[in-house]
Amino acid sequence: MWIYVKHLQRPVRVSRCDVGLAKLILTQFGSPDGEFSASWRYITQAFTMPTGRTKALLIDTGTEELAHLEMVGTLFHMLIRDATPQQLRNAGLGEQYAVHGFATFLNAPGGEPWTSSYIQATGDPVADLTEDMAAEQKARAAYERLLCSTNDPDVREVLSFLREREVVHFQRFGEALQHVQSYLDSPRHLWPGFTSEQKD
Amino acid sequence: MWIYVKHLQRPVRVSRCDVGLAKLILTQFGSPDGEFSASWRYITQAFTMPTGRTKALLIDTGTEELAHLEMVGTLFHMLIRDATPQQLRNAGLGEQYAVHGFATFLNAPGGEPWTSSYIQATGDPVADLTEDMAAEQKARAAYERLLCSTNDPDVREVLSFLREREVVHFQRFGEALQHVQSYLDSPRHLWPGFTSEQKD
Amino acid sequence: MWIYVKHLQRPVRVSRCDVGLAKLILTQFGSPDGEFSASWRYITQAFTMPTGRTKALLIDTGTEELAHLEMVGTLFHMLIRDATPQQLRNAGLGEQYAVHGFATFLNAPGGEPWTSSYIQATGDPVADLTEDMAAEQKARAAYERLLCSTNDPDVREVLSFLREREVVHFQRFGEALQHVQSYLDSPRHLWPGFTSEQKD
Amino acid sequence: MWIYVKHLQRPVRVSRCDVGLAKLILTQFGSPDGEFSASWRYITQAFTMPTGRTKALLIDTGTEELAHLEMVGTLFHMLIRDATPQQLRNAGLGEQYAVHGFATFLNAPGGEPWTSSYIQATGDPVADLTEDMAAEQKARAAYERLLCSTNDPDVREVLSFLREREVVHFQRFGEALQHVQSYLDSPRHLWPGFTSEQKD
Amino acid sequence: MWIYVKHLQRPVRVSRCDVGLAKLILTQFGSPDGEFSASWRYITQAFTMPTGRTKALLIDTGTEELAHLEMVGTLFHMLIRDATPQQLRNAGLGEQYAVHGFATFLNAPGGEPWTSSYIQATGDPVADLTEDMAAEQKARAAYERLLCSTNDPDVREVLSFLREREVVHFQRFGEALQHVQSYLDSPRHLWPGFTSEQKD
Amino acid sequence: MWIYVKHLQRPVRVSRCDVGLAKLILTQFGSPDGEFSASWRYITQAFTMPTGRTKALLIDTGTEELAHLEMVGTLFHMLIRDATPQQLRNAGLGEQYAVHGFATFLNAPGGEPWTSSYIQATGDPVADLTEDMAAEQKARAAYERLLCSTNDPDVREVLSFLREREVVHFQRFGEALQHVQSYLDSPRHLWPGFTSEQKD
Repeated sequence: MWIYVKHLQRPVRVSRCDVGLAKLILTQFGSPDGEFSASWRYITQAFTMPTGRTKALLIDTGTEELAHLEMVGTLFHMLIRDATPQQLRNAGLGEQYAVHGFATFLNAPGGEPWTSSYIQATGDPVADLTEDMAAEQKARAAYERLLCSTNDPDVREVLSFLREREVVHFQRFGEALQHVQSYLDSPRHLWPGFTSEQKD
Repeated sequence: MWIYVKHLQRPVRVSRCDVGLAKLILTQFGSPDGEFSASWRYITQAFTMPTGRTKALLIDTGTEELAHLEMVGTLFHMLIRDATPQQLRNAGLGEQYAVHGFATFLNAPGGEPWTSSYIQATGDPVADLTEDMAAEQKARAAYERLLCSTNDPDVREVLSFLREREVVHFQRFGEALQHVQSYLDSPRHLWPGFTSEQKD
Repeated sequence: MWIYVKHLQRPVRVSRCDVGLAKLILTQFGSPDGEFSASWRYITQAFTMPTGRTKALLIDTGTEELAHLEMVGTLFHMLIRDATPQQLRNAGLGEQYAVHGFATFLNAPGGEPWTSSYIQATGDPVADLTEDMAAEQKARAAYERLLCSTNDPDVREVLSFLREREVVHFQRFGEALQHVQSYLDSPRHLWPGFTSEQKD
Repeated sequence: MWIYVKHLQRPVRVSRCDVGLAKLILTQFGSPDGEFSASWRYITQAFTMPTGRTKALLIDTGTEELAHLEMVGTLFHMLIRDATPQQLRNAGLGEQYAVHGFATFLNAPGGEPWTSSYIQATGDPVADLTEDMAAEQKARAAYERLLCSTNDPDVREVLSFLREREVVHFQRFGEALQHVQSYLDSPRHLWPGFTSEQKD
Repeated sequence: MWIYVKHLQRPVRVSRCDVGLAKLILTQFGSPDGEFSASWRYITQAFTMPTGRTKALLIDTGTEELAHLEMVGTLFHMLIRDATPQQLRNAGLGEQYAVHGFATFLNAPGGEPWTSSYIQATGDPVADLTEDMAAEQKARAAYERLLCSTNDPDVREVLSFLREREVVHFQRFGEALQHVQSYLDSPRHLWPGFTSEQKD
Repeated sequence: MWIYVKHLQRPVRVSRCDVGLAKLILTQFGSPDGEFSASWRYITQAFTMPTGRTKALLIDTGTEELAHLEMVGTLFHMLIRDATPQQLRNAGLGEQYAVHGFATFLNAPGGEPWTSSYIQATGDPVADLTEDMAAEQKARAAYERLLCSTNDPDVREVLSFLREREVVHFQRFGEALQHVQSYLDSPRHLWPGFTSEQKD
């Protein structure tokens, strides 16, 4: 279970109201490669990880991504909270405002609702961990695109921190993949429903 | 941010492997009125709640629903982990196995991926809290349908506990709605973009 | 069955062509809390309502929402029919024009197709009627956001009328909920598949 | 606007409770080629039809499809209303029951929610009417598949009637297409944004 | 199986970088009536076509639509490849850039992911071929809307060519429909599961 | 562009009609990790690959996956073509038959339509190639689950061949990733919109 502690993993600040930037920031909230996708990909995969170490890594990383989601949501909220509906409309957030008001909703910048089709869990730890490494690369690339999209130094600092964390997670998943592969090569382990000859 | 503590909110046991029941249990994992919908409806709405008390209620309830999600996922995992692929197929979980193996995935019993279209956040606290009360009623009804679907005493105990919690949350949201309505009637508060005459 | 009568529930006028406003008006056509969601939520729920009175209320209200849908669609059509493709593109409706031309399509302002994932019917009349009360609150909030988004007096008059109706429906559903609850408390009624002890 | 009259277009009867058949019947309720798709395809296209005759045909046909939707929904309801949850589960409707109880929901037999992605409106009357002719052919084929799936004489009678109506609608749309084509060839009409030379 | 040959069906040129136009061009890449929908509608339907001639027509036309998809994707790529992220954002492609960078992704101009809900295959050759004729009309109308949206002579030449091909395909499908209808009227053929009296 | 050659990449045979297996085989046709997802992930990513070698690898691999899709579709078709509607229904393919007849449709075994939300293209070659490696691992795992689900020697031979190809592709993408990384480290290359200091 989770316990909520009433502060962000790292403080968040914005230099000014910036609705257009807020829209793009939604990328890391409710888009395919955002923090929500990351956290739930990892947490749901944990149920079928074969070792305590990999289970723990997935839940801990997923939990950290939840903290990142909260930071990204706070960033979005700060960037629009002083705007008027007219300013939202002028800056391209009119559709979002019409449907969700000032709320921080789980959708992409274009309004597409988040779907678990963005993520996968197969019960095969090698496949799942490779998927996780890909997820981190895609999130890293997304943060780089966002960094290309703003000069606000406060927002950039947050984005850089979050981008950095994805690189660290990528490393951790790579190590876990090696760990899992040697675990699976060991004679005492076979997957459910699979005979050893099928494993080639 | 959240901290993960390595135990369930309440222990979960199953009397026997039961793939057909596991399939139905997915209802409370990745269906419209399941625990995942509940938690993210509440947590995302918290950003625009007007008082500290309502913000805290939404995040705390959302966090408790995450604990319930973990219990439901554990239930699903326990109900199928000793089955063979052939047993999964015979008991109607063949499609799920083919696409997701033994993983606990965020979809409905029929395989439909979870989507944020199931939930809403409007930034209007009266609308959002009424939505939350409806969510609790729908979850209560879902647990009652699941209780109609099994005689496993261990599973029933978990489901009854979870159903009970929905009733408690319903009460809490009702109180919060009254609190918000008196807050909004007070002269010091107006919604963003709304003049007082528009509020009638 | 339904009979179509060839006039709107209430006449609709617009002061001028306004493509940007038309886009936002789609909110009440094909968005989660628009008239289409409302009508089909109510009409489909009617099949399992336990009394003639609640069945009738749901079908009648759903049918009125169809009339509102027609008014909203007419509004959209009037706001864009004199525009050129170039004007549509300049005012942010270029994507809609590219995919659907001048048609009034069942999607949200951002282009997301309508899905029945926005609505729910559980066969439990208490849950369903609470869901309907939430729907009316969300629609009320949506009309308020639209009222914040235009000064066109003709459009505002239509939106105000439609907003008003949602408030009336909310009251009606509240009364129906009380009616259903006393009906269910009466000794002669039990839900399908539920024994009395399960109902606590 | 529409007026609801409290009887079906044609009476509906079922010979016996048949959950498995009910599941398949959902095809004509919430599937791509069901009555709901048909009615909303036609009604939404009516806004941009170029002549009074075609507008009226689309709204009238769409309204008749709503009556068919009500018949199909009633059929589904009659086929399952006397079943127990256990019977629903045994006959393959367990997922539907878990998520929607005994409700008649707008989804396909497999549980996929209805989406407006199933239909199209382009504002081009030739394209839209050809789409409508295809819709009628697909619905005709769907009723033939359902007729292959049951021997219940009462259900077959309803399905045969509904199949027959699709064939009639197909003819009507074909005539309307010819009417529209001669209208468009007449010198007084040009499409919005299109110069005559573009029309080749 | 398919063999890739390393040139376009017809060369593609653009006069200048034009991000706003690129966005609209996505209509024919990943929208309901774009080239991707066309190709996969035809190719998947081929499995159940009753004659070698209709099988071949569907696969050949579907394969040509793949070539068109490549041309449309190349057009999109050429129209944006020299833009900066800031230019993408200013011209309304900021959301697309944030989520997919400079990639040519299978979505609509508004960002909605492509879904096979846009297409249908029923195994009934009359229904399927009528669906294909409708698809060609809708694609023709889409190209006409795009032609209304740009003066770039190079892009217009490509769009005109592609529009022309849809008209040709429409004719071919019409001929195939006649061929199938006479084939089905011949005494030696009956559909799977259907007795002759059911066919009326 | 592509040229269709009228034979499969490798012949396909089935030992007997097997509807239940056919349903599972749909996994590799229209599921998240099936051949369709693979081919379109690779082909669409090719537009932004930085070198001729990586462009060619992605298009060639994507084209081979199209050949695999055709093999899988043929397998599905062979496994059900001699069944009656009643047999389809008894073996759990009744929903599919009701909606799509005997057609080979782009959906998952449970009926969920294919969506491009399953795939991603980011324009970042490192992220995209890592995504591709994950795709191959997931497809490999899916084929292993299918191999666990049948004893039909003919079907197993096809599935083993296809599984083998995924392993080969995984190797190729790994080599391409190394190639891209050294290319990007070379001084002559910088990504669009990115200054060298941003690349850390």
